[in-house]
Amino acid sequence: MKEENVLATTMRSYSCGDLDITYLGEEIVICGWVYRKRDLGHLIFINLRDRYGSVQLIFDPQVNPSMHSAAQTITPESSLRVMGKVRARKSEAVNIKMKSGEIEIEVLNFDILSLSKPLPFLLSGEDEDVNQNVRMTYRYLEIRRGRGILHNLLVRHAVIRRIRKYLDDRHFLEIETPILTKSTPEGARDYLVPSRIHKSLFYALPQSPQLFKQLLMISGIDRYYQIAKCFRDEDLRADRQPEFTQLDLEMSYVDREDILQLVEGMVEDLFSVILDIKVERPFLRMNYKDAIEQYGTDKPDMRFDLQFFRLDTALCRSKFSIFQGLEHEMCIKGIKIVGGGHLSRKFLEECNQRAAHLGLRHLFWVKVLADGFTQGISKFFSVEEERIVRMIMDAQNGDLLLFAAQEEKIVNRSLNYIRHFLAEKLQLIAHNLWKFVWILDFPLFEEVEEKNGKRKISSMHHPFTAPLKEDEIFLEHHPLQVRSAAYDIVLNGHEIGGGSIRVNNRTIQDKIFSLLNFSPERIDQNFGFFSHALEFGTPPHGGIAVGLDRLIMLMTQSSSIRDVIAFPKTQSAVDLMMSAPSSVSIEQLSELGLKIDN
Amino acid sequence: MKEENVLATTMRSYSCGDLDITYLGEEIVICGWVYRKRDLGHLIFINLRDRYGSVQLIFDPQVNPSMHSAAQTITPESSLRVMGKVRARKSEAVNIKMKSGEIEIEVLNFDILSLSKPLPFLLSGEDEDVNQNVRMTYRYLEIRRGRGILHNLLVRHAVIRRIRKYLDDRHFLEIETPILTKSTPEGARDYLVPSRIHKSLFYALPQSPQLFKQLLMISGIDRYYQIAKCFRDEDLRADRQPEFTQLDLEMSYVDREDILQLVEGMVEDLFSVILDIKVERPFLRMNYKDAIEQYGTDKPDMRFDLQFFRLDTALCRSKFSIFQGLEHEMCIKGIKIVGGGHLSRKFLEECNQRAAHLGLRHLFWVKVLADGFTQGISKFFSVEEERIVRMIMDAQNGDLLLFAAQEEKIVNRSLNYIRHFLAEKLQLIAHNLWKFVWILDFPLFEEVEEKNGKRKISSMHHPFTAPLKEDEIFLEHHPLQVRSAAYDIVLNGHEIGGGSIRVNNRTIQDKIFSLLNFSPERIDQNFGFFSHALEFGTPPHGGIAVGLDRLIMLMTQSSSIRDVIAFPKTQSAVDLMMSAPSSVSIEQLSELGLKIDN
Repeated sequence: MKEENVLATTMRSYSCGDLDITYLGEEIVICGWVYRKRDLGHLIFINLRDRYGSVQLIFDPQVNPSMHSAAQTITPESSLRVMGKVRARKSEAVNIKMKSGEIEIEVLNFDILSLSKPLPFLLSGEDEDVNQNVRMTYRYLEIRRGRGILHNLLVRHAVIRRIRKYLDDRHFLEIETPILTKSTPEGARDYLVPSRIHKSLFYALPQSPQLFKQLLMISGIDRYYQIAKCFRDEDLRADRQPEFTQLDLEMSYVDREDILQLVEGMVEDLFSVILDIKVERPFLRMNYKDAIEQYGTDKPDMRFDLQFFRLDTALCRSKFSIFQGLEHEMCIKGIKIVGGGHLSRKFLEECNQRAAHLGLRHLFWVKVLADGFTQGISKFFSVEEERIVRMIMDAQNGDLLLFAAQEEKIVNRSLNYIRHFLAEKLQLIAHNLWKFVWILDFPLFEEVEEKNGKRKISSMHHPFTAPLKEDEIFLEHHPLQVRSAAYDIVLNGHEIGGGSIRVNNRTIQDKIFSLLNFSPERIDQNFGFFSHALEFGTPPHGGIAVGLDRLIMLMTQSSSIRDVIAFPKTQSAVDLMMSAPSSVSIEQLSELGLKIDN
Repeated sequence: MKEENVLATTMRSYSCGDLDITYLGEEIVICGWVYRKRDLGHLIFINLRDRYGSVQLIFDPQVNPSMHSAAQTITPESSLRVMGKVRARKSEAVNIKMKSGEIEIEVLNFDILSLSKPLPFLLSGEDEDVNQNVRMTYRYLEIRRGRGILHNLLVRHAVIRRIRKYLDDRHFLEIETPILTKSTPEGARDYLVPSRIHKSLFYALPQSPQLFKQLLMISGIDRYYQIAKCFRDEDLRADRQPEFTQLDLEMSYVDREDILQLVEGMVEDLFSVILDIKVERPFLRMNYKDAIEQYGTDKPDMRFDLQFFRLDTALCRSKFSIFQGLEHEMCIKGIKIVGGGHLSRKFLEECNQRAAHLGLRHLFWVKVLADGFTQGISKFFSVEEERIVRMIMDAQNGDLLLFAAQEEKIVNRSLNYIRHFLAEKLQLIAHNLWKFVWILDFPLFEEVEEKNGKRKISSMHHPFTAPLKEDEIFLEHHPLQVRSAAYDIVLNGHEIGGGSIRVNNRTIQDKIFSLLNFSPERIDQNFGFFSHALEFGTPPHGGIAVGLDRLIMLMTQSSSIRDVIAFPKTQSAVDLMMSAPSSVSIEQLSELGLKIDN
């Protein structure tokens, strides 16, 4: 039995995607766009398309000469309403790849609902050379093409729907938090919104609903989530958007393990239902310190190996001048390419050049033979050093070893880059592999350099992150040693989410503010109400925010988050379709009590 | 068998709401707030509460003296973690109104997770005198009280979830449209957002996703919806918020009837599932013209009668000077109060006073007896006039008739007010009655007076509303006569939504812009891209936006939309909890290229 036809409207009896051989002989009304048109002189064929599918129309002058002649005026992408009869295609014309491939519609009558003028680029066929800016300007046509973006929007809908179901089933409440909120000069920059009623005062758009979700825990909501729009006015890096969407959630009476299990279960469910992929559980876990040590990054791609080996001690007495007398913050690390002994000098020189772009003075190498190192810098290794390095790196005959010795940050950054470069060039990444890893035990604080060159202490995540219980005693005198109850979830080298257990105690919260060198006035002005709220029986709580744009980008194997957003902005935060931002009138500004100040 | 216990965490084995007599004898761990505490000297009772319910703790010095003595320090609203054993209450202590009323928890051990300092107002008990501003400042405590607002947030969650299901089942795609968009100086005012990257240019927050949803139809999405945040920077009327939430939806290849049926089905489903109420279908329908004529408003409350009767013709030759020689735009209307003959002069004078506040010079009346009118202005009626008025108004012995004669707008406004006043005072509104009515055939345009006293033509809804097909011919020469394909849905006198079939044809769209006297530059700057988009085969489409805050306010029988929003703003658009809007630093402004201009 056919399902209830929910796509029928007063204008159509079916969608183009409904029709197949089971409708044979039926008189139907369908609407859609002219996708492909072939005028064979005696017959006109049109492929009519809507979101749900496409179907072939046939205009036969023998059957209906007036329809055939009217069809000649139809342009590509015009919108049609077609009354016709479903008939079987001739056997040689059957297209088994299409749902409607066994049928065609004999057109009895049709209306041109809207005739399209010539298009800025072809919607059928490839036409892949079209400038990206033209595609952004005509975003609505780019979506109508129906391949990449429409598919991504369908997946996005399904992903968000499934996440909601998972959380609803666990008693999470979806609650909307304000968009017009208060500016808190923390981290990346706020978008400001001038108030007209209260001149010279401003709202700010939220970078995240952090304080609100914590207040909801204080409110007794117990479990909250939101598919939340967030905003960040920063110089846009490679693949960021000024407004982005995160799954924001928070739970009371939990510790870290509860959040990790919840998220793992959610991701497992999502990948199973949406992609029919079984992800491995439990997810890998790695300390922040180990991640930096072994992969040079806190978002290691675990789909391939190529981890780093620390060689400071092994090579501290090297006769190679570069390895000698390591200064403070200097280190030596190596990477082993199993079976890489065949790699050419040219390739290794390319690696060296690329590492140089990231500040590495030189990427050294040796090849491993059964009886010792050869080529590269092999001559600098003593027998003893060779033995130790071989052991540490478990190097075998035929392997290649790479070495970097410089300031630790540069070593990490450049080897991380080289690691990915190698993985790609040597095709070490198995297709359709999904490797999740939790990064744990981040430092609570980090030292950062200010514009004036001074170093200051700053929150690694945000000031509401709780220290690990066992590290609380170091807060006073060794704050940089304190680890936090923060966690990031990393998928295939992309950070897709992060969260923490929060401070639920005013004394510790105030201590953190003071370590961050916030003035009492600033604390009072920005966070006073919140410190105050902590004192009314705040339950232990924690949560996470998952970047949905990036997650869906990965799930759809898109190359940019722009491809999973209906109306994205460019890298310079411009909406090319609407031309936003744009100038406004002097009157509008004067109503706001503002003046342009160039 | 018990369901899977999804509320258990590492900190609790159950929620307070889980426990009942079936857990007898079990050792449990629960967390929650100290709601009520009674110290009877020999025994301490604490009512421990979380979002899901509450349960009684008992501290017995005979059983556990140290716990009993520790319990003495606990303050109201402190957050506790309690290990205890479920035991039966003594039969005289059973409270059959509570799920946990047959049990109590013998406390074996407990932690104070967070001790509460004294509260600004009591959360238990009534304490209803607390100033509204104090409640807004401590919104998180107001929510934790767990009566009104928490309940409303639960209903809100359920309503939105159900709406999504209804639309998902019908192949609607939920798509997020941008918040940082373009200022279009239409209707109420935009919130502006200065761009830092592009100094002196501004984004605007959307008043609705109108253009985006139409562009999605041009994109081939076919069916779209969004639970959309919208923004309006206007002087706030009685019950408005600067940011509000609407269900925004749009469909292709539809006419008005499709949208009406879709929404009726959705509302029917919602009221049945959420409130267990069966709403009558089809909904009432009324032309805009009739609504204004008979009820003086385009949002008539249909729970009671009291409609207006037009009496211009019947009374045009009246000897009562007020009724004589009606000028242009003047009219006479009457309301009949069935059985209202007993109403006192004092009450009628109060009606008169109230109508006077709305500009009515006098509200006249007569009482109806079997043999004629009496009292009030009865002496001015000729026998003939009396007969006709009786007939028009179907007046019977014992009824009371009210009359207003003045400029039509004032008559409508004041009689509309009086109609509601009477319904309330005379208790004509049956409890728990839900009367939906569609208002149809609005004028496409209205004449409005500008600040300079000039009259200009303006869109009654917005410039993208299609004229009725049969009225298109009047566009050129009689635009004020053109009716639109717009519709509003009204529930119990509140407009809860509105929409229309849209223009899908550039010629008509440009004609409307020109009738609105938009300059070609302005059209080009604000809507150019959109007019252009209409030319690429735009399908016929239409949609609606439903105000969710108001709908949920009505469904929860709340008195203000503030009560269905977690963190609302005051009437002057201030967030009292966070103190937003607030001042920002000179540096922040200078980065934006702005200066305060007082």
